[in-house]
Amino acid sequence: MNVAVETSAMSRARQREVAEALRAFLPSPSVLSDREVLKPYECDGLSAYRRVPMVVALPESEEQVRMVLKTCHEMRVPVVARGAGTGLSGGALPLADGVLLSLAKFMRILAIDPVARTARVQPGVRNLAISEAAEPYGLYYAPDPSSQIACTIGGNIAENAGGVHCLKYGLTVHNIVKLRVLTMDGEALEIGGDGLDAAGYDLLALMTGSEGMLGVITEITVKLLPRPETAQVVMAAFDDIGRAGQAVADIIAAGIVPAGLEMMDKAATHAVEPFVNAGYPLDAEAILLAESDGSAGEVADEIKRIQEVMSASGATRMRTSRDEAERLRFWAGRKAAFPAVGRLTPDYYCMDGTIPRKRLGEVLQGIARMEKKYGLRCANVFHAGDGNLHPLIMYDANDPDQLRRTEEFGAEILELCIRVGGTITGEHGVGIEKINQMCVQFKPAELELFHGVKHAFDEHALLNPGKAVPTLARCAEYSRMHVRGGQLPHPELPRF
Amino acid sequence: MNVAVETSAMSRARQREVAEALRAFLPSPSVLSDREVLKPYECDGLSAYRRVPMVVALPESEEQVRMVLKTCHEMRVPVVARGAGTGLSGGALPLADGVLLSLAKFMRILAIDPVARTARVQPGVRNLAISEAAEPYGLYYAPDPSSQIACTIGGNIAENAGGVHCLKYGLTVHNIVKLRVLTMDGEALEIGGDGLDAAGYDLLALMTGSEGMLGVITEITVKLLPRPETAQVVMAAFDDIGRAGQAVADIIAAGIVPAGLEMMDKAATHAVEPFVNAGYPLDAEAILLAESDGSAGEVADEIKRIQEVMSASGATRMRTSRDEAERLRFWAGRKAAFPAVGRLTPDYYCMDGTIPRKRLGEVLQGIARMEKKYGLRCANVFHAGDGNLHPLIMYDANDPDQLRRTEEFGAEILELCIRVGGTITGEHGVGIEKINQMCVQFKPAELELFHGVKHAFDEHALLNPGKAVPTLARCAEYSRMHVRGGQLPHPELPRF
Repeated sequence: MNVAVETSAMSRARQREVAEALRAFLPSPSVLSDREVLKPYECDGLSAYRRVPMVVALPESEEQVRMVLKTCHEMRVPVVARGAGTGLSGGALPLADGVLLSLAKFMRILAIDPVARTARVQPGVRNLAISEAAEPYGLYYAPDPSSQIACTIGGNIAENAGGVHCLKYGLTVHNIVKLRVLTMDGEALEIGGDGLDAAGYDLLALMTGSEGMLGVITEITVKLLPRPETAQVVMAAFDDIGRAGQAVADIIAAGIVPAGLEMMDKAATHAVEPFVNAGYPLDAEAILLAESDGSAGEVADEIKRIQEVMSASGATRMRTSRDEAERLRFWAGRKAAFPAVGRLTPDYYCMDGTIPRKRLGEVLQGIARMEKKYGLRCANVFHAGDGNLHPLIMYDANDPDQLRRTEEFGAEILELCIRVGGTITGEHGVGIEKINQMCVQFKPAELELFHGVKHAFDEHALLNPGKAVPTLARCAEYSRMHVRGGQLPHPELPRF
Repeated sequence: MNVAVETSAMSRARQREVAEALRAFLPSPSVLSDREVLKPYECDGLSAYRRVPMVVALPESEEQVRMVLKTCHEMRVPVVARGAGTGLSGGALPLADGVLLSLAKFMRILAIDPVARTARVQPGVRNLAISEAAEPYGLYYAPDPSSQIACTIGGNIAENAGGVHCLKYGLTVHNIVKLRVLTMDGEALEIGGDGLDAAGYDLLALMTGSEGMLGVITEITVKLLPRPETAQVVMAAFDDIGRAGQAVADIIAAGIVPAGLEMMDKAATHAVEPFVNAGYPLDAEAILLAESDGSAGEVADEIKRIQEVMSASGATRMRTSRDEAERLRFWAGRKAAFPAVGRLTPDYYCMDGTIPRKRLGEVLQGIARMEKKYGLRCANVFHAGDGNLHPLIMYDANDPDQLRRTEEFGAEILELCIRVGGTITGEHGVGIEKINQMCVQFKPAELELFHGVKHAFDEHALLNPGKAVPTLARCAEYSRMHVRGGQLPHPELPRF
């Protein structure tokens, strides 16, 4: 008997043991352990990484979740929580020796309180479903990631998701007030409160964006906002990408906080326009979309100011949406940018980094230089107002040299983000994708603190191990492998 | 030699030893150890608690702070950091066997970046000084606690301070982007970043409001906002306090986010009016002050909407400021409320609790009932928009029965806050004042998590020990002492 067979027999025995323990309190169809039903859970939106989990658990009550966690805690089985699996950084990538805990059955909107302007929901509720449920009260939930039709609010909290409107309305962390959380040993925590501030350390913010490492969320109270009476968007064209970047800085410097402020470069508009006919000018080097929402008076006032600043900043052409249909058409192009680029190239690598707004022009010019250096095209789509870049590097994964150049291109973009004072992630999280870059972004003392916080919540490191925060050993090894000629360590593009 | 003398000789020896160790790297005048120079540091704004520290250290560089912490860490001496000492919950109360670390010399504004709209400042800079320095750029720092002329930004972060404008502009946590922090063992941490979001757990939010328990802040980057073009305030009178509470809910429900939304009851306006001639109507049971700021167009639009809602909610009279002088006069009354009440009574106890906005009317009526029950007057001043109450119970500390009734009155108010889903602190922090109420607000599992987080930052619990988060032992004892007839444990008013 060789070692592989022995290992495999051992892991099959372990799988049986864990599945059986879970079936002691979960109905049999809620515990998956056959390979063919496990397969769909092998990856999230970062499909470059795949791992079939040992067991999938599909609880439907908080008590069942508590029992799953307690059981896994006792058996020392790692647990990865999963919402809709739309995440782009591999945060919900399963472990071959772990339980994948799906919150898919937690789909209920428990209460909408139009006076407090809050909704109490289960973690598996889709982002957009909250706004749909709040619509009869004239309310909505503000954060709107592109995947909002599919992604769940639990996953939004795990990743501190943003969206087109987060410049004005904030990230997920700014739009939730209360969480019910189960720790790995099955303790229920009430975090936050209906009031503005809560006593004690800010565990609400700590949980938000913690990528499933600290606890499993079983209930969420989100803030709802009144639907703006009206909204309009200005589309402005620029014949120089640096000037478009300057216009963004000028708008912010003028004290305007648009509801959305997005930029697309020529490569992006050219990809999009034939696809959706948004009406973008194809001769512009960059376009900006700036939205204003509020009462009719406020919007009229703000749109006028936006137009003035855009003109002064050198916009060569401007169009302002005349009705809701036109407003939606202007946005349709931006929202379709990823699939549109996908039509032009066998593969693309969507980067996600954040930079200080004032460095936008410089970073854009840097990326343009890199396109030449690596001989690869890059379409640039940005949440410009908050400095969140999504460069889309186009390549062919079947060409090893292109893949290598894409890796280096992506690495150089992230290095540039760090160098200008930004971070390696905007709204997609660290997950498994960027765990090595965490070694660049943070000092050992800072990583140790992260581990200390993790330890306070999850003593045996059973929740989503290996994600988001690298071990010091991993960083040391990564640094040995990758430091070349005094350069920053290079990240690696996930390989298939 | 009796025990007391022996102890005192021992503590004198310890004092000499610690002072000497600090003088190894601090200039002699920066290490205070004589009783008469230590005395001014014996309390902060919660003057009911006093303790003379063993030694006061007054470093003036980050390296000196690091050395103070490192030295104290090695000698196992507890450290309490202090800004201006204006805190109202005893967060900066010294320890008799500890070092008081004053950040008073960290008064420099290091940089103002008008494009990024940030200011990089040292922790001892006064809150108002930031706005003064930013004024030439047309910018200001939004959070404005009443003590803003004196309180420091470092202290604001420790307490997550609010202010009259935090309804629209958020608490301190929403207005900072980056911190430099030294841990107790002298490690420097860079927390947050210039971008919108940072990778890793949200240590920026965790530090904010941590009451000096996790680290010592040595540098802060705050957000600056453009000064609004204009501002106006509506003063509305109501003949019923419940109706005024309803008007607050109605304004919020209408989707209006006023720059400030404050309420004062009759007792408060009667205390204030003879003192500052703000022009408040003395026959009203409550008045509301609702401010709008922004561009002229926005303000005109919003003021009209505020007036409409106030009318519909039953305001008996309304006045809208016609010019800046009148606007400031309307606010002057609100800002002078505490000293004005102080003129009417030998002593007053300023409570600080937060409740869900929709329970405002009910809580106000509850407090009115308690006035009769305890035979004590209470003036009510509220950040009504965010449900942050500041009831001021008037009493005479020399009358033991009044003191006892005041204690019970205050306790009942806090219990009511918890019962309606609020918290025991709004913006004043827990410190030493409300540490027992933390036992009521949090479950043992939650307190254990707090201690776990603390441990990750400060293994030997040397930073501000005994504040903000009670030990489980303390809670157990408190619960034994105070649970009476199935009631919630009663907090205790600090005694002199």
